[in-house]
Amino acid sequence: MMNQTNDKVGQKRMTKDVFIYDTTLRDGEQGENIAFSLEDKISIATRLDEFGIDYIEGGWPGSNPKAMRFFEKMKSITLRHAKLVAFGSTRRKGIKAEDDKQVAQLLKCGASVVTIFGKTWDLHVREALRVTPEENLAMIYDTVAFLKSNGREVIYDAEHFFDGFKANPEYSLETLRQAVSAGADCVTLCDTNGGTMPTEIPAILEEVRKVTGTTRLGIHTHNDAGMAVANTIIACRHGVSLVQGTINGFGERCGNADLIQIIPNLELKYAKNCLPEGQLKNLTAVSHFVCEVANLAPNPNQPYVGQTVFTHKGGIHVSAVQRNSSTYEHIDPEVVGNRRRVLVSELSGSSNIEFKAKELGINIDTASEETKKILLHMKELEADGYQFEGAEASFEILVQKGLGIYHPFFKLKGFRVIVGNKDGAEIGDTEAVVRLDVNGDDRYTVADGNGPVDALDRALRRALVKNYPELNEVKLTDFKVRVLDARSATAAKVRVIIESTDQHATWTTVGVSTDMVEAAYLSLVDSIDYFLYKRRNGKDK
Amino acid sequence: MMNQTNDKVGQKRMTKDVFIYDTTLRDGEQGENIAFSLEDKISIATRLDEFGIDYIEGGWPGSNPKAMRFFEKMKSITLRHAKLVAFGSTRRKGIKAEDDKQVAQLLKCGASVVTIFGKTWDLHVREALRVTPEENLAMIYDTVAFLKSNGREVIYDAEHFFDGFKANPEYSLETLRQAVSAGADCVTLCDTNGGTMPTEIPAILEEVRKVTGTTRLGIHTHNDAGMAVANTIIACRHGVSLVQGTINGFGERCGNADLIQIIPNLELKYAKNCLPEGQLKNLTAVSHFVCEVANLAPNPNQPYVGQTVFTHKGGIHVSAVQRNSSTYEHIDPEVVGNRRRVLVSELSGSSNIEFKAKELGINIDTASEETKKILLHMKELEADGYQFEGAEASFEILVQKGLGIYHPFFKLKGFRVIVGNKDGAEIGDTEAVVRLDVNGDDRYTVADGNGPVDALDRALRRALVKNYPELNEVKLTDFKVRVLDARSATAAKVRVIIESTDQHATWTTVGVSTDMVEAAYLSLVDSIDYFLYKRRNGKDK
Repeated sequence: MMNQTNDKVGQKRMTKDVFIYDTTLRDGEQGENIAFSLEDKISIATRLDEFGIDYIEGGWPGSNPKAMRFFEKMKSITLRHAKLVAFGSTRRKGIKAEDDKQVAQLLKCGASVVTIFGKTWDLHVREALRVTPEENLAMIYDTVAFLKSNGREVIYDAEHFFDGFKANPEYSLETLRQAVSAGADCVTLCDTNGGTMPTEIPAILEEVRKVTGTTRLGIHTHNDAGMAVANTIIACRHGVSLVQGTINGFGERCGNADLIQIIPNLELKYAKNCLPEGQLKNLTAVSHFVCEVANLAPNPNQPYVGQTVFTHKGGIHVSAVQRNSSTYEHIDPEVVGNRRRVLVSELSGSSNIEFKAKELGINIDTASEETKKILLHMKELEADGYQFEGAEASFEILVQKGLGIYHPFFKLKGFRVIVGNKDGAEIGDTEAVVRLDVNGDDRYTVADGNGPVDALDRALRRALVKNYPELNEVKLTDFKVRVLDARSATAAKVRVIIESTDQHATWTTVGVSTDMVEAAYLSLVDSIDYFLYKRRNGKDK
Repeated sequence: MMNQTNDKVGQKRMTKDVFIYDTTLRDGEQGENIAFSLEDKISIATRLDEFGIDYIEGGWPGSNPKAMRFFEKMKSITLRHAKLVAFGSTRRKGIKAEDDKQVAQLLKCGASVVTIFGKTWDLHVREALRVTPEENLAMIYDTVAFLKSNGREVIYDAEHFFDGFKANPEYSLETLRQAVSAGADCVTLCDTNGGTMPTEIPAILEEVRKVTGTTRLGIHTHNDAGMAVANTIIACRHGVSLVQGTINGFGERCGNADLIQIIPNLELKYAKNCLPEGQLKNLTAVSHFVCEVANLAPNPNQPYVGQTVFTHKGGIHVSAVQRNSSTYEHIDPEVVGNRRRVLVSELSGSSNIEFKAKELGINIDTASEETKKILLHMKELEADGYQFEGAEASFEILVQKGLGIYHPFFKLKGFRVIVGNKDGAEIGDTEAVVRLDVNGDDRYTVADGNGPVDALDRALRRALVKNYPELNEVKLTDFKVRVLDARSATAAKVRVIIESTDQHATWTTVGVSTDMVEAAYLSLVDSIDYFLYKRRNGKDK
């Protein structure tokens, strides 16, 4: 097996059984409701690197400018573990690889690894690419060889491999042979249309290995028949040692193979090393983090990490689980950072608070009155639609309030936001008025802005900056709005999550209301409170 | 390899290869957000019977009164195809089966088929059931024999079979032997905790068949490792001919095996007969029907039946699919009653607009000036943050405007929304004022609401309902808010998507602005415009 990559992690795991290749930022973004900003992409790449993902595919620099900006930006960011991958296609027909602009972009972007996809299925060579079978083979060979001669690690993605193999095994295998003889470091078999069945995989892999020899094999599956994870697992039992997928299975149509399911299956069911020592317990957090960035609600039934997947109902059931968890759970939820949920018990909550508080560096006593008070308050808020998983600054303020160590920096006396236009289609500026009591001073200010959140933010700062000049350092970097209960439609509750930064740290706060302006206001106030508390207590230095 | 796909579609079905056993009404209802009324259960059972499901498990009559009422009610309803199944457990310890009240209820409910579950795993026999291993065996034998002697078809469900087999193969197989020798018609192997891997199935089934001989084998899986469908399919390749699952995979934790994925996989990938001739094309409708009854939104990514699963982006891609659908689709969507969808997106060319317009019943000429104008306008709007992928009503209005066939139903003169509170923490109601010109009439109205969208919606209806009383039929069913460019944070553009219904149809509209209130306003206006246009042109009838 391969043991080069984990050197830097320098821990107990000397060998790596399966390399994990994430394509959330490219293939995952093909999902219908998924769009990442440049900042989103950087924050996901950084988080996946910490998690111990081996390869992070950042995009196709030759296909869109946003991808190139991402690679430019990543040049100034050091990854501890992962290799950054650029994705692209084989050269165009009839020209040299070195004359192809799209191929040139792959070198220019600076990624040490390049993944090239090529056509495997003769039907596609004729109908989509419209070149001769021989030219397609040359396009594969030339592109891989050119990138290798430029010192890149090259992964060759055989698009439509399984369908191509079934239609014309000889030709499909010949395309792989070209990639291997041109020096590809890995050949990845793609089930692009997602219709392959797990029972087909072993025999096909046997044929493939006759051609690819000792070259590493990868797999890239889609979930159109509900088999993306199973096909990947079975391939790993038959010689594949690189797995391509996305966090949460994001991707077009039915999605890509879900790494959040594949990784624990390989680690826990087959004892295959995929992650650095100690990282598997971050599986749930990573899954939820990527949902949050994508502004999608986590799937409560998602294997391993969903909110309901270790839930127990009745009392006998619960005590049986407590005596011997393996009676009703296929794994211990803590192993993947999830938790047991007992619908009738309150115990689950206080240990959760303790767990979260510990994460934030606050020690609390689970049995104390304060903890019970915090728990009760948190439950009320959660029943109201709050969610603290992605809003840890708000959670910290909640804990401070419960422990009696919170001191407000100002008191709201009133606010008003007016959105409107006069006579016709052009909208006027939004205006926000806030009135605060700041240590006994009456601050009554007005500001306009681009929309109510912007106007409110400006009015609040204006009112506070005389007393707290350090607020000039704070910038809001993101805000997200989620409608909580679609059934009540326009009168539904809305959750607004706001991310702020002072250049040293970034923090996230949450507000919930049936009124999205008020939800934004609540979240803004938490953000300012959190910053001032940290700064005044010297905790952020 | 399997390329006989679709062989048997269109032929006369003389034999049944796999029997389909639905447990949506019992195990499916264990799902955390699923609750069926008596009427719901009857409507689902009737629909599944029409669909050609072989066994419909109605509930556990001995465990709750609602289940018994269901069986009572079903006595007056004739099923055309399906057999109704009652679910229950083996007799209690230390008594005769004929003296067990719970067993008596199984006979009394009148179902011709009874499924009995028993303990297979010696750990559970000791820890949960708290009987000797021998008594457990007797409980299985006695209960099956008693029900057989009363003329029932008996299916024996071996709970925790795979875990039990791995812990103690001899004992687990002995439990099956008891069921078989007592006359069970089928022995179902249950992966109750859902942690079994597909690679484990074949060897275990080989051992099982040595004990069960010619008795029919069934399988019942859960999705805790993401393997419920794959395990079922693989079991069917190794001698299993009865499949238990639920519609849409409803069920506790990660859900049960999804029959909506299993059925088309067996039919289309392995040419196994599961459904009566001509029923597979109702797969999508059945899936959505059960979602509707359960009051859950369909999963747009669900294999085979989801809304996005035969969706195509880019122009080259679209024209390739039109020439030869197998290039980018693993099956023809019509075979399962789904349809191909082409996204109107940034990538689109005029061929996409033409395709989309055709779907909407509008004929446009790709080469015409109007089409070019529409395309240009669409590109401008998309650059501004609009997205018509999920907002087809707004797209239709855009096309109408481009073709010059759009007539406004009212003209906005101005609007104003005030959000605020007075003195302290309690927020006041939101107030919206709109001023419209409706066919020359000045309409100047005010409404309050739960948040700005609600208030605006109310004010707009009030202003319009005198002229357009049919607006009383329209209801807003969902709204979604998405922040488009996180970098500009609180001054970022916001996209608001609103879904509306008039009980006959549902439509979706989009609005974009830096101000989320204005974005919602724009989306609301499109929704009203679209509805009035359809209604006034008689297109929705």
